[in-house]
Amino acid sequence: MDAERVEVVEVGPRDGLQNESRVLSVDDRLELIGRAVAAGVRRIEAVSFVNPARVPQMAGAEEVMAGVRRGAGVSYIGLVLNRRGLDRALAAGVDEVNVAVPATDGFCVRNQGRTVDEMLDVFEDVAAAAREAGTPVSATVSTAFGCPFDGETPPERVVEVARRAAEAGAVEVALADTIGVGVPAQVVDLVRRVRAVADGAVLRCHFHNTRNTGYANALAAHGAGVRVLDASAGGFGGCPFAPAATGNIATEDLLYMLHRSGVATGVDAGAIARTGAWLGSRLGKEPPALLGRAGGFPAS
Amino acid sequence: MDAERVEVVEVGPRDGLQNESRVLSVDDRLELIGRAVAAGVRRIEAVSFVNPARVPQMAGAEEVMAGVRRGAGVSYIGLVLNRRGLDRALAAGVDEVNVAVPATDGFCVRNQGRTVDEMLDVFEDVAAAAREAGTPVSATVSTAFGCPFDGETPPERVVEVARRAAEAGAVEVALADTIGVGVPAQVVDLVRRVRAVADGAVLRCHFHNTRNTGYANALAAHGAGVRVLDASAGGFGGCPFAPAATGNIATEDLLYMLHRSGVATGVDAGAIARTGAWLGSRLGKEPPALLGRAGGFPAS
Repeated sequence: MDAERVEVVEVGPRDGLQNESRVLSVDDRLELIGRAVAAGVRRIEAVSFVNPARVPQMAGAEEVMAGVRRGAGVSYIGLVLNRRGLDRALAAGVDEVNVAVPATDGFCVRNQGRTVDEMLDVFEDVAAAAREAGTPVSATVSTAFGCPFDGETPPERVVEVARRAAEAGAVEVALADTIGVGVPAQVVDLVRRVRAVADGAVLRCHFHNTRNTGYANALAAHGAGVRVLDASAGGFGGCPFAPAATGNIATEDLLYMLHRSGVATGVDAGAIARTGAWLGSRLGKEPPALLGRAGGFPAS
Repeated sequence: MDAERVEVVEVGPRDGLQNESRVLSVDDRLELIGRAVAAGVRRIEAVSFVNPARVPQMAGAEEVMAGVRRGAGVSYIGLVLNRRGLDRALAAGVDEVNVAVPATDGFCVRNQGRTVDEMLDVFEDVAAAAREAGTPVSATVSTAFGCPFDGETPPERVVEVARRAAEAGAVEVALADTIGVGVPAQVVDLVRRVRAVADGAVLRCHFHNTRNTGYANALAAHGAGVRVLDASAGGFGGCPFAPAATGNIATEDLLYMLHRSGVATGVDAGAIARTGAWLGSRLGKEPPALLGRAGGFPAS
Protein backbone atom coordinates (compact mmCIF):
# COMPACT_ATOMS: atom_id res chain seq x y z
CA MET A 1 0.00 0.00 0.00
CA ASP A 2 1.69 3.13 -1.30
CA ALA A 3 0.50 6.29 0.46
CA GLU A 4 1.89 8.30 -2.42
CA ARG A 5 -0.33 6.68 -5.02
CA VAL A 6 -4.11 6.51 -5.40
CA GLU A 7 -6.11 4.74 -8.08
CA VAL A 8 -8.99 6.87 -9.29
CA VAL A 9 -11.89 4.95 -10.79
CA GLU A 10 -13.74 7.13 -13.29
CA VAL A 11 -17.49 6.60 -12.80
CA GLY A 12 -18.71 9.47 -14.98
CA PRO A 13 -20.03 7.27 -17.82
CA ARG A 14 -22.24 5.39 -15.34
CA ASP A 15 -22.99 7.24 -12.08
CA GLY A 16 -22.32 10.60 -13.73
CA LEU A 17 -24.93 10.08 -16.43
CA GLN A 18 -27.55 7.70 -15.09
CA ASN A 19 -29.76 10.39 -13.57
CA GLU A 20 -29.27 13.20 -16.06
CA SER A 21 -32.42 14.40 -17.78
CA ARG A 22 -30.56 14.61 -21.09
CA VAL A 23 -29.80 11.15 -22.46
CA LEU A 24 -26.44 10.99 -24.21
CA SER A 25 -25.90 8.95 -27.36
CA VAL A 26 -23.67 5.91 -27.40
CA ASP A 27 -21.18 7.96 -29.42
CA ASP A 28 -21.06 10.69 -26.78
CA ARG A 29 -20.59 8.09 -24.07
CA LEU A 30 -17.77 6.52 -26.08
CA GLU A 31 -16.18 9.94 -26.47
CA LEU A 32 -16.39 10.47 -22.69
CA ILE A 33 -14.76 7.09 -22.07
CA GLY A 34 -12.10 7.75 -24.72
CA ARG A 35 -11.25 11.15 -23.24
CA ALA A 36 -10.91 9.67 -19.73
CA VAL A 37 -8.67 6.90 -20.99
CA ALA A 38 -6.55 9.38 -22.97
CA ALA A 39 -6.19 11.39 -19.74
CA GLY A 40 -4.68 8.36 -18.04
CA VAL A 41 -7.64 6.63 -16.37
CA ARG A 42 -7.04 2.88 -16.12
CA ARG A 43 -10.29 1.75 -14.48
CA ILE A 44 -13.60 3.12 -15.64
CA GLU A 45 -17.20 2.25 -14.87
CA ALA A 46 -18.29 2.38 -18.47
CA VAL A 47 -21.77 0.89 -18.51
CA SER A 48 -24.67 -0.39 -16.46
CA PHE A 49 -26.60 -3.50 -17.44
CA VAL A 50 -29.97 -2.45 -16.10
CA ASN A 51 -33.37 -2.32 -17.73
CA PRO A 52 -33.17 0.34 -20.50
CA ALA A 53 -36.89 0.98 -20.15
CA ARG A 54 -36.25 2.05 -16.57
CA VAL A 55 -32.91 3.78 -17.07
CA PRO A 56 -32.77 5.05 -20.66
CA GLN A 57 -29.53 6.90 -19.91
CA MET A 58 -27.80 3.51 -19.69
CA ALA A 59 -29.38 1.92 -22.78
CA GLY A 60 -27.03 0.46 -25.36
CA ALA A 61 -24.49 -0.89 -22.89
CA GLU A 62 -23.54 -3.63 -25.36
CA GLU A 63 -22.89 -1.05 -28.08
CA VAL A 64 -20.73 0.98 -25.72
CA MET A 65 -18.67 -2.05 -24.77
CA ALA A 66 -18.33 -3.00 -28.45
CA GLY A 67 -16.95 0.44 -29.16
CA VAL A 68 -14.35 0.94 -26.42
CA ARG A 69 -10.69 0.77 -27.29
CA ARG A 70 -9.06 -2.40 -25.98
CA GLY A 71 -5.51 -3.35 -25.25
CA ALA A 72 -4.35 -0.19 -23.48
CA GLY A 73 -4.30 -1.74 -20.02
CA VAL A 74 -7.69 -0.28 -19.23
CA SER A 75 -10.23 -2.18 -17.18
CA TYR A 76 -13.84 -1.52 -18.20
CA ILE A 77 -16.32 -2.09 -15.40
CA GLY A 78 -20.00 -2.91 -15.84
CA LEU A 79 -22.55 -2.36 -13.09
CA VAL A 80 -25.06 -5.15 -12.66
CA LEU A 81 -27.89 -5.63 -10.20
CA ASN A 82 -28.91 -9.21 -10.93
CA ARG A 83 -28.02 -12.40 -12.74
CA ARG A 84 -29.55 -11.24 -16.00
CA GLY A 85 -27.36 -8.13 -15.88
CA LEU A 86 -24.32 -10.31 -15.22
CA ASP A 87 -25.05 -12.50 -18.23
CA ARG A 88 -25.30 -9.39 -20.41
CA ALA A 89 -22.08 -7.98 -18.92
CA LEU A 90 -20.14 -11.18 -19.51
CA ALA A 91 -21.45 -11.47 -23.07
CA ALA A 92 -20.45 -7.83 -23.68
CA GLY A 93 -16.92 -8.55 -22.47
CA VAL A 94 -16.54 -6.31 -19.44
CA ASP A 95 -13.26 -6.66 -17.56
CA GLU A 96 -14.89 -6.34 -14.15
CA VAL A 97 -18.35 -6.50 -12.70
CA ASN A 98 -19.58 -4.22 -9.93
CA VAL A 99 -22.73 -4.90 -7.93
CA ALA A 100 -24.46 -2.26 -5.80
CA VAL A 101 -25.69 -3.70 -2.53
CA PRO A 102 -27.44 -1.08 -0.37
CA ALA A 103 -26.98 -1.25 3.39
CA THR A 104 -30.56 -0.08 4.05
CA ASP A 105 -33.84 -1.74 3.18
CA GLY A 106 -35.61 1.55 2.47
CA PHE A 107 -33.28 2.30 -0.39
CA CYS A 108 -32.75 -1.29 -1.55
CA VAL A 109 -36.44 -2.00 -1.92
CA ARG A 110 -37.16 1.22 -3.80
CA ASN A 111 -34.05 1.11 -6.00
CA GLN A 112 -33.64 -2.59 -6.58
CA GLY A 113 -36.98 -4.15 -5.63
CA ARG A 114 -35.41 -6.35 -2.97
CA THR A 115 -34.52 -6.25 0.71
CA VAL A 116 -30.85 -6.09 1.64
CA ASP A 117 -30.87 -9.75 2.61
CA GLU A 118 -32.41 -10.69 -0.72
CA MET A 119 -29.84 -8.52 -2.51
CA LEU A 120 -27.03 -10.28 -0.68
CA ASP A 121 -28.39 -13.59 -1.96
CA VAL A 122 -28.33 -12.14 -5.47
CA PHE A 123 -24.77 -10.96 -4.91
CA GLU A 124 -23.68 -14.44 -3.86
CA ASP A 125 -25.20 -15.92 -7.00
CA VAL A 126 -23.70 -13.23 -9.26
CA ALA A 127 -20.28 -13.50 -7.61
CA ALA A 128 -20.19 -17.28 -8.03
CA ALA A 129 -21.13 -17.06 -11.70
CA ALA A 130 -18.65 -14.24 -12.35
CA ARG A 131 -15.88 -16.18 -10.67
CA GLU A 132 -16.71 -19.19 -12.80
CA ALA A 133 -16.39 -16.95 -15.87
CA GLY A 134 -13.05 -15.65 -14.57
CA THR A 135 -14.30 -12.07 -14.22
CA PRO A 136 -13.51 -10.18 -11.00
CA VAL A 137 -16.48 -8.87 -9.10
CA SER A 138 -16.68 -6.01 -6.61
CA ALA A 139 -19.46 -4.94 -4.26
CA THR A 140 -20.40 -1.33 -3.69
CA VAL A 141 -22.20 -0.93 -0.37
CA SER A 142 -24.54 1.95 -1.15
CA THR A 143 -26.30 4.17 1.43
CA ALA A 144 -23.44 3.21 3.76
CA PHE A 145 -23.40 6.69 5.36
CA GLY A 146 -27.12 7.40 5.50
CA CYS A 147 -30.35 6.66 3.68
CA PRO A 148 -32.98 9.04 2.31
CA PHE A 149 -35.68 6.74 3.68
CA ASP A 150 -34.23 5.06 6.75
CA GLY A 151 -32.12 7.95 8.07
CA GLU A 152 -28.98 6.93 9.94
CA THR A 153 -27.36 3.74 8.67
CA PRO A 154 -26.17 1.59 11.58
CA PRO A 155 -22.47 0.90 11.00
CA GLU A 156 -23.07 -2.70 12.08
CA ARG A 157 -25.33 -3.10 9.06
CA VAL A 158 -22.61 -1.79 6.71
CA VAL A 159 -20.11 -4.17 8.29
CA GLU A 160 -22.47 -7.10 7.84
CA VAL A 161 -23.08 -6.34 4.15
CA ALA A 162 -19.35 -5.87 3.53
CA ARG A 163 -18.49 -9.07 5.37
CA ARG A 164 -20.98 -11.16 3.43
CA ALA A 165 -19.89 -9.60 0.13
CA ALA A 166 -16.23 -10.33 0.84
CA GLU A 167 -17.04 -13.89 1.89
CA ALA A 168 -19.01 -14.36 -1.31
CA GLY A 169 -15.90 -13.49 -3.31
CA ALA A 170 -15.86 -9.74 -3.82
CA VAL A 171 -12.25 -8.84 -4.63
CA GLU A 172 -13.05 -5.21 -3.78
CA VAL A 173 -15.61 -3.71 -1.41
CA ALA A 174 -16.63 -0.07 -1.70
CA LEU A 175 -18.26 2.18 0.86
CA ALA A 176 -20.60 4.50 -1.01
CA ASP A 177 -22.14 7.71 0.28
CA THR A 178 -25.00 7.56 -2.21
CA ILE A 179 -26.78 10.71 -1.01
CA GLY A 180 -23.75 12.67 0.22
CA VAL A 181 -24.46 12.84 3.93
CA GLY A 182 -21.23 11.37 5.30
CA VAL A 183 -18.57 13.19 7.27
CA PRO A 184 -14.87 12.42 7.76
CA ALA A 185 -15.17 10.97 11.27
CA GLN A 186 -17.70 8.49 9.92
CA VAL A 187 -15.41 7.58 7.04
CA VAL A 188 -12.55 6.76 9.38
CA ASP A 189 -14.81 4.72 11.63
CA LEU A 190 -16.44 2.73 8.81
CA VAL A 191 -13.16 2.05 7.01
CA ARG A 192 -11.66 0.69 10.20
CA ARG A 193 -14.68 -1.50 10.94
CA VAL A 194 -15.01 -2.86 7.41
CA ARG A 195 -11.31 -3.59 7.06
CA ALA A 196 -11.55 -5.77 10.13
CA VAL A 197 -14.12 -8.08 8.49
CA ALA A 198 -13.13 -7.84 4.81
CA ASP A 199 -9.39 -7.53 4.86
CA GLY A 200 -9.00 -9.95 1.98
CA ALA A 201 -10.76 -7.44 -0.26
CA VAL A 202 -9.42 -4.13 -1.53
CA LEU A 203 -11.28 -1.18 0.02
CA ARG A 204 -12.66 1.49 -2.31
CA CYS A 205 -14.65 4.62 -1.40
CA HIS A 206 -17.31 6.47 -3.35
CA PHE A 207 -18.30 9.95 -2.28
CA HIS A 208 -20.84 12.53 -3.36
CA ASN A 209 -20.31 16.21 -2.62
CA THR A 210 -23.96 16.91 -1.85
CA ARG A 211 -23.22 18.81 1.36
CA ASN A 212 -19.64 19.84 0.55
CA THR A 213 -18.09 17.03 2.56
CA GLY A 214 -17.05 14.86 -0.40
CA TYR A 215 -13.43 15.97 -0.73
CA ALA A 216 -12.89 16.04 3.03
CA ASN A 217 -14.26 12.49 3.09
CA ALA A 218 -11.83 11.48 0.33
CA LEU A 219 -9.00 12.97 2.36
CA ALA A 220 -10.16 11.09 5.45
CA ALA A 221 -10.40 7.84 3.49
CA HIS A 222 -6.86 8.31 2.17
CA GLY A 223 -5.69 9.03 5.69
CA ALA A 224 -7.34 5.79 6.83
CA GLY A 225 -5.43 3.84 4.20
CA VAL A 226 -7.91 3.68 1.32
CA ARG A 227 -6.06 3.76 -2.02
CA VAL A 228 -8.94 3.47 -4.51
CA LEU A 229 -11.44 6.31 -4.94
CA ASP A 230 -14.36 6.75 -7.31
CA ALA A 231 -14.88 10.13 -8.98
CA SER A 232 -16.78 11.55 -11.92
CA ALA A 233 -15.41 13.92 -14.59
CA GLY A 234 -17.08 17.29 -14.09
CA GLY A 235 -18.68 16.13 -10.86
CA PHE A 236 -21.92 15.12 -12.53
CA GLY A 237 -24.20 12.50 -11.08
CA GLY A 238 -26.83 12.41 -8.46
CA CYS A 239 -29.46 10.29 -6.94
CA PRO A 240 -33.04 9.98 -8.20
CA PHE A 241 -34.21 9.97 -4.58
CA ALA A 242 -32.36 13.20 -3.77
CA PRO A 243 -33.19 15.40 -6.75
CA ALA A 244 -31.59 18.64 -5.53
CA ALA A 245 -28.35 16.88 -4.75
CA THR A 246 -25.15 17.67 -6.57
CA GLY A 247 -23.16 14.75 -7.77
CA ASN A 248 -20.12 12.65 -7.32
CA ILE A 249 -16.90 14.28 -6.30
CA ALA A 250 -15.34 15.63 -9.48
CA THR A 251 -12.35 13.72 -10.80
CA GLU A 252 -10.46 16.92 -11.71
CA ASP A 253 -10.94 18.50 -8.27
CA LEU A 254 -9.93 15.28 -6.51
CA LEU A 255 -6.82 15.10 -8.72
CA TYR A 256 -5.94 18.72 -7.90
CA MET A 257 -6.06 17.95 -4.18
CA LEU A 258 -4.16 14.68 -4.46
CA HIS A 259 -1.47 15.81 -6.88
CA ARG A 260 -0.62 19.00 -4.99
CA SER A 261 -0.48 16.90 -1.81
CA GLY A 262 2.19 14.71 -3.39
CA VAL A 263 -0.10 11.77 -4.18
CA ALA A 264 0.24 10.48 -7.75
CA THR A 265 -2.62 9.05 -9.81
CA GLY A 266 -1.27 8.85 -13.36
CA VAL A 267 -4.24 10.91 -14.57
CA ASP A 268 -3.95 14.38 -16.13
CA ALA A 269 -6.12 16.83 -14.12
CA GLY A 270 -6.19 19.42 -16.89
CA ALA A 271 -7.36 16.88 -19.46
CA ILE A 272 -10.12 15.71 -17.11
CA ALA A 273 -11.16 19.32 -16.45
CA ARG A 274 -11.52 19.81 -20.20
CA THR A 275 -13.50 16.57 -20.34
CA GLY A 276 -15.78 17.85 -17.57
CA ALA A 277 -16.36 21.08 -19.50
CA TRP A 278 -17.06 19.13 -22.69
CA LEU A 279 -19.49 16.87 -20.83
CA GLY A 280 -21.22 19.95 -19.44
CA SER A 281 -21.75 21.19 -22.97
CA ARG A 282 -23.29 17.85 -23.95
CA LEU A 283 -25.55 17.79 -20.88
CA GLY A 284 -26.46 21.46 -21.15
CA LYS A 285 -25.37 22.40 -17.64
CA GLU A 286 -22.36 23.78 -15.86
CA PRO A 287 -20.20 21.13 -14.19
CA PRO A 288 -20.20 21.15 -10.37
CA ALA A 289 -16.42 20.74 -10.64
CA LEU A 290 -14.53 23.92 -9.78
CA LEU A 291 -11.06 23.37 -11.25
CA GLY A 292 -12.22 24.04 -14.79
CA ARG A 293 -13.86 27.27 -13.66
CA ALA A 294 -11.05 28.54 -11.44
CA GLY A 295 -8.09 27.24 -13.41
CA GLY A 296 -5.18 25.37 -11.91
CA PHE A 297 -2.53 26.75 -9.62
CA PRO A 298 -1.44 30.15 -10.99
CA ALA A 299 2.00 30.25 -12.57
CA SER A 300 4.37 32.84 -11.19
CA MET B 1 -7.37 22.89 23.46
CA ASP B 2 -10.58 20.93 23.15
CA ALA B 3 -10.71 18.74 20.04
CA GLU B 4 -14.46 18.54 20.42
CA ARG B 5 -15.02 22.27 20.10
CA VAL B 6 -14.24 24.74 17.29
CA GLU B 7 -14.84 28.47 17.24
CA VAL B 8 -16.25 29.59 13.92
CA VAL B 9 -15.60 33.23 13.05
CA GLU B 10 -18.32 34.50 10.72
CA VAL B 11 -16.68 36.63 8.01
CA GLY B 12 -19.69 36.98 5.72
CA PRO B 13 -20.34 40.66 6.48
CA ARG B 14 -16.77 41.50 5.43
CA ASP B 15 -15.07 38.94 3.18
CA GLY B 16 -18.43 37.62 2.00
CA LEU B 17 -19.59 41.00 0.72
CA GLN B 18 -16.53 43.03 -0.15
CA ASN B 19 -16.29 41.83 -3.74
CA GLU B 20 -19.95 41.44 -4.60
CA SER B 21 -21.17 43.54 -7.49
CA ARG B 22 -24.36 44.35 -5.60
CA VAL B 23 -23.68 46.72 -2.69
CA LEU B 24 -25.82 45.95 0.34
CA SER B 25 -27.28 48.70 2.52
CA VAL B 26 -26.18 49.21 6.09
CA ASP B 27 -29.56 47.83 7.18
CA ASP B 28 -29.05 44.65 5.18
CA ARG B 29 -25.58 44.24 6.64
CA LEU B 30 -26.99 44.72 10.13
CA GLU B 31 -29.62 42.11 9.42
CA LEU B 32 -26.91 39.69 8.28
CA ILE B 33 -24.94 40.32 11.46
CA GLY B 34 -28.06 40.03 13.62
CA ARG B 35 -29.03 36.74 12.01
CA ALA B 36 -25.54 35.29 12.53
CA VAL B 37 -25.53 36.36 16.17
CA ALA B 38 -29.02 34.93 16.69
CA ALA B 39 -27.73 31.65 15.22
CA GLY B 40 -25.07 31.51 17.93
CA VAL B 41 -22.03 33.17 16.35
CA ARG B 42 -19.86 34.83 19.02
CA ARG B 43 -17.11 36.34 16.84
CA ILE B 44 -17.94 38.12 13.62
CA GLU B 45 -15.92 40.19 11.20
CA ALA B 46 -18.54 42.87 10.88
CA VAL B 47 -16.84 45.71 9.04
CA SER B 48 -13.77 46.86 7.16
CA PHE B 49 -12.28 50.32 7.68
CA VAL B 50 -10.97 50.81 4.17
CA ASN B 51 -11.45 53.63 1.71
CA PRO B 52 -15.18 53.65 0.77
CA ALA B 53 -14.31 55.17 -2.60
CA ARG B 54 -12.26 52.08 -3.35
CA VAL B 55 -14.50 49.49 -1.68
CA PRO B 56 -18.08 50.83 -1.71
CA GLN B 57 -19.35 47.49 -0.40
CA MET B 58 -17.71 48.32 2.95
CA ALA B 59 -18.82 51.96 3.19
CA GLY B 60 -20.63 53.00 6.35
CA ALA B 61 -18.57 50.87 8.71
CA GLU B 62 -19.22 53.37 11.52
CA GLU B 63 -22.97 53.14 10.97
CA VAL B 64 -22.82 49.37 11.04
CA MET B 65 -20.88 49.38 14.31
CA ALA B 66 -23.32 51.91 15.77
CA GLY B 67 -26.18 49.56 14.92
CA VAL B 68 -24.98 46.20 16.21
CA ARG B 69 -26.50 44.73 19.32
CA ARG B 70 -24.10 44.86 22.25
CA GLY B 71 -23.89 42.96 25.48
CA ALA B 72 -24.60 39.47 24.21
CA GLY B 73 -21.02 38.26 24.60
CA VAL B 74 -20.35 38.86 20.91
CA SER B 75 -17.02 40.16 19.69
CA TYR B 76 -17.27 42.42 16.64
CA ILE B 77 -14.10 42.49 14.55
CA GLY B 78 -13.06 45.30 12.24
CA LEU B 79 -10.56 44.78 9.42
CA VAL B 80 -8.00 47.56 9.05
CA LEU B 81 -5.08 47.95 6.66
CA ASN B 82 -3.36 51.01 8.12
CA ARG B 83 -3.20 53.42 11.04
CA ARG B 84 -6.02 55.56 9.71
CA GLY B 85 -8.25 52.49 9.57
CA LEU B 86 -7.28 51.61 13.12
CA ASP B 87 -8.23 55.05 14.38
CA ARG B 88 -11.63 54.74 12.72
CA ALA B 89 -12.07 51.22 14.14
CA LEU B 90 -11.24 52.28 17.68
CA ALA B 91 -13.54 55.30 17.43
CA ALA B 92 -16.32 53.04 16.16
CA GLY B 93 -15.85 50.73 19.15
CA VAL B 94 -14.83 47.44 17.59
CA ASP B 95 -14.02 44.65 20.05
CA GLU B 96 -11.09 43.37 18.00
CA VAL B 97 -8.99 44.55 15.12
CA ASN B 98 -7.79 42.28 12.32
CA VAL B 99 -5.03 43.26 9.90
CA ALA B 100 -4.41 41.48 6.60
CA VAL B 101 -0.71 41.03 5.94
CA PRO B 102 -0.06 39.24 2.63
CA ALA B 103 2.88 36.85 2.46
CA THR B 104 3.65 37.80 -1.15
CA ASP B 105 4.76 41.12 -2.60
CA GLY B 106 2.81 40.66 -5.83
CA PHE B 107 -0.47 40.61 -3.95
CA CYS B 108 0.51 43.05 -1.21
CA VAL B 109 1.57 45.78 -3.62
CA ARG B 110 -1.55 45.45 -5.77
CA ASN B 111 -4.00 45.06 -2.90
CA GLN B 112 -2.48 47.31 -0.27
CA GLY B 113 -0.01 49.52 -2.13
CA ARG B 114 2.92 48.30 -0.04
CA THR B 115 5.53 45.56 -0.03
CA VAL B 116 5.22 42.85 2.60
CA ASP B 117 8.06 44.38 4.60
CA GLU B 118 6.36 47.77 4.53
CA MET B 119 3.09 46.15 5.55
CA LEU B 120 4.79 44.46 8.49
CA ASP B 121 6.00 47.89 9.63
CA VAL B 122 2.41 49.12 9.40
CA PHE B 123 1.29 46.10 11.40
CA GLU B 124 3.79 46.85 14.15
CA ASP B 125 2.55 50.42 14.37
CA VAL B 126 -1.12 49.37 14.33
CA ALA B 127 -0.56 46.62 16.89
CA ALA B 128 1.24 48.98 19.29
CA ALA B 129 -1.54 51.57 19.06
CA ALA B 130 -4.27 48.95 19.44
CA ARG B 131 -2.55 47.49 22.48
CA GLU B 132 -2.33 50.95 23.99
CA ALA B 133 -6.07 51.31 23.44
CA GLY B 134 -6.66 47.91 25.05
CA THR B 135 -8.06 46.36 21.88
CA PRO B 136 -6.82 42.89 20.82
CA VAL B 137 -5.30 42.70 17.38
CA SER B 138 -4.92 39.70 15.09
CA ALA B 139 -2.97 39.27 11.86
CA THR B 140 -4.31 37.39 8.88
CA VAL B 141 -1.48 36.20 6.66
CA SER B 142 -3.11 36.33 3.25
CA THR B 143 -1.89 34.52 0.10
CA ALA B 144 -0.25 32.07 2.52
CA PHE B 145 -0.95 29.11 0.21
CA GLY B 146 -0.30 30.71 -3.16
CA CYS B 147 -0.48 34.04 -4.96
CA PRO B 148 -2.23 34.99 -8.19
CA PHE B 149 0.82 37.01 -9.18
CA ASP B 150 3.81 35.32 -7.55
CA GLY B 151 2.68 31.69 -7.86
CA GLU B 152 3.92 29.39 -5.11
CA THR B 153 4.31 31.06 -1.71
CA PRO B 154 7.51 29.89 -0.01
CA PRO B 155 6.49 28.54 3.42
CA GLU B 156 9.54 30.30 4.89
CA ARG B 157 7.97 33.60 3.88
CA VAL B 158 4.69 32.72 5.64
CA VAL B 159 6.62 31.73 8.74
CA GLU B 160 8.52 35.00 8.71
CA VAL B 161 5.36 37.12 8.42
CA ALA B 162 3.65 35.10 11.16
CA ARG B 163 6.68 35.36 13.43
CA ARG B 164 6.99 39.11 13.04
CA ALA B 165 3.22 39.58 13.55
CA ALA B 166 3.26 37.51 16.73
CA GLU B 167 6.31 39.36 18.03
CA ALA B 168 4.55 42.64 17.33
CA GLY B 169 1.69 41.58 19.60
CA ALA B 170 -0.82 39.70 17.47
CA VAL B 171 -2.90 37.64 19.90
CA GLU B 172 -4.06 35.53 16.98
CA VAL B 173 -2.40 34.69 13.67
CA ALA B 174 -4.42 33.36 10.75
CA LEU B 175 -3.26 31.45 7.69
CA ALA B 176 -5.43 32.58 4.79
CA ASP B 177 -5.85 30.84 1.46
CA THR B 178 -6.98 34.02 -0.28
CA ILE B 179 -7.37 32.50 -3.75
CA GLY B 180 -8.28 28.95 -2.76
CA VAL B 181 -5.28 27.04 -4.05
CA GLY B 182 -4.21 25.26 -0.87
CA VAL B 183 -4.36 21.53 -0.19
CA PRO B 184 -4.48 19.57 3.06
CA ALA B 185 -0.85 18.50 3.09
CA GLN B 186 0.15 22.16 2.82
CA VAL B 187 -2.19 23.10 5.67
CA VAL B 188 -0.63 20.56 7.98
CA ASP B 189 2.88 21.67 7.04
CA LEU B 190 2.19 25.40 7.43
CA VAL B 191 0.34 25.01 10.73
CA ARG B 192 3.24 23.05 12.15
CA ARG B 193 5.81 25.57 10.94
CA VAL B 194 3.90 28.62 12.11
CA ARG B 195 3.08 27.16 15.50
CA ALA B 196 6.80 26.74 16.09
CA VAL B 197 7.46 30.47 15.73
CA ALA B 198 4.18 31.96 16.99
CA ASP B 199 3.08 29.63 19.73
CA GLY B 200 2.08 32.52 21.99
CA ALA B 201 -0.64 33.40 19.50
CA VAL B 202 -3.84 31.51 18.78
CA LEU B 203 -3.82 29.95 15.31
CA ARG B 204 -6.79 30.59 13.03
CA CYS B 205 -7.34 29.37 9.46
CA HIS B 206 -9.23 30.99 6.61
CA PHE B 207 -10.10 28.90 3.57
CA HIS B 208 -11.76 29.52 0.23
CA ASN B 209 -13.39 26.68 -1.67
CA THR B 210 -12.25 27.87 -5.09
CA ARG B 211 -10.99 24.45 -6.19
CA ASN B 212 -13.12 22.33 -3.85
CA THR B 213 -10.35 21.86 -1.31
CA GLY B 214 -11.71 24.27 1.32
CA TYR B 215 -13.53 21.81 3.55
CA ALA B 216 -10.75 19.23 3.29
CA ASN B 217 -8.35 21.99 4.32
CA ALA B 218 -10.57 22.84 7.29
CA LEU B 219 -10.55 19.18 8.29
CA ALA B 220 -6.76 19.07 7.97
CA ALA B 221 -6.41 22.24 10.06
CA HIS B 222 -8.60 20.75 12.75
CA GLY B 223 -6.55 17.57 12.66
CA ALA B 224 -3.41 19.69 13.10
CA GLY B 225 -4.86 21.30 16.21
CA VAL B 226 -6.40 24.51 14.85
CA ARG B 227 -9.53 25.39 16.81
CA VAL B 228 -10.58 28.68 15.16
CA LEU B 229 -11.90 28.70 11.59
CA ASP B 230 -13.26 31.51 9.43
CA ALA B 231 -16.33 30.87 7.30
CA SER B 232 -18.96 32.87 5.47
CA ALA B 233 -22.74 32.33 5.58
CA GLY B 234 -23.84 31.05 2.18
CA GLY B 235 -20.22 30.69 1.08
CA PHE B 236 -20.15 34.08 -0.58
CA GLY B 237 -16.94 36.01 -1.05
CA GLY B 238 -14.18 36.00 -3.52
CA CYS B 239 -11.08 37.78 -4.59
CA PRO B 240 -10.98 40.72 -6.99
CA PHE B 241 -7.85 39.24 -8.52
CA ALA B 242 -9.51 35.88 -9.13
CA PRO B 243 -12.89 36.86 -10.57
CA ALA B 244 -14.16 33.39 -11.46
CA ALA B 245 -13.39 32.06 -8.01
CA THR B 246 -16.08 30.89 -5.65
CA GLY B 247 -15.87 32.18 -2.15
CA ASN B 248 -15.11 31.41 1.43
CA ILE B 249 -16.04 28.04 2.79
CA ALA B 250 -19.71 28.27 3.76
CA THR B 251 -20.44 28.46 7.46
CA GLU B 252 -23.43 26.11 7.21
CA ASP B 253 -21.50 23.44 5.29
CA LEU B 254 -18.58 23.65 7.70
CA LEU B 255 -21.01 23.32 10.63
CA TYR B 256 -22.63 20.27 9.04
CA MET B 257 -19.24 18.57 8.74
CA LEU B 258 -18.11 19.53 12.24
CA HIS B 259 -21.32 18.80 14.09
CA ARG B 260 -21.85 15.37 12.54
CA SER B 261 -18.21 14.60 13.35
CA GLY B 262 -18.91 15.28 17.04
CA VAL B 263 -17.29 18.73 17.11
CA ALA B 264 -19.44 21.39 18.77
CA THR B 265 -19.53 25.06 17.72
CA GLY B 266 -22.53 26.52 19.51
CA VAL B 267 -23.89 27.74 16.16
CA ASP B 268 -27.14 26.51 14.57
CA ALA B 269 -26.40 25.14 11.07
CA GLY B 270 -30.02 25.35 9.96
CA ALA B 271 -30.29 28.99 10.99
CA ILE B 272 -27.09 29.82 9.12
CA ALA B 273 -28.33 27.94 6.03
CA ARG B 274 -31.47 30.10 6.11
CA THR B 275 -29.24 33.17 6.52
CA GLY B 276 -27.20 32.07 3.49
CA ALA B 277 -30.39 31.69 1.44
CA TRP B 278 -31.63 35.11 2.58
CA LEU B 279 -28.27 36.66 1.72
CA GLY B 280 -28.45 35.05 -1.72
CA SER B 281 -31.80 36.73 -2.27
CA ARG B 282 -30.28 40.10 -1.32
CA LEU B 283 -27.28 39.58 -3.58
CA GLY B 284 -29.32 38.15 -6.43
CA LYS B 285 -27.38 34.92 -6.73
CA GLU B 286 -27.53 31.36 -5.51
CA PRO B 287 -25.28 30.68 -2.51
CA PRO B 288 -22.30 28.40 -3.20
CA ALA B 289 -23.24 26.65 0.07
CA LEU B 290 -24.83 23.25 -0.49
CA LEU B 291 -26.57 22.48 2.82
CA GLY B 292 -29.43 24.87 2.11
CA ARG B 293 -29.95 23.27 -1.30
CA ALA B 294 -29.65 19.64 -0.23
CA GLY B 295 -31.22 19.88 3.20
CA GLY B 296 -29.75 18.43 6.35
CA PHE B 297 -29.40 14.78 7.23
CA PRO B 298 -32.65 13.03 6.29
CA ALA B 299 -34.82 11.96 9.19
CA SER B 300 -35.86 8.33 9.26
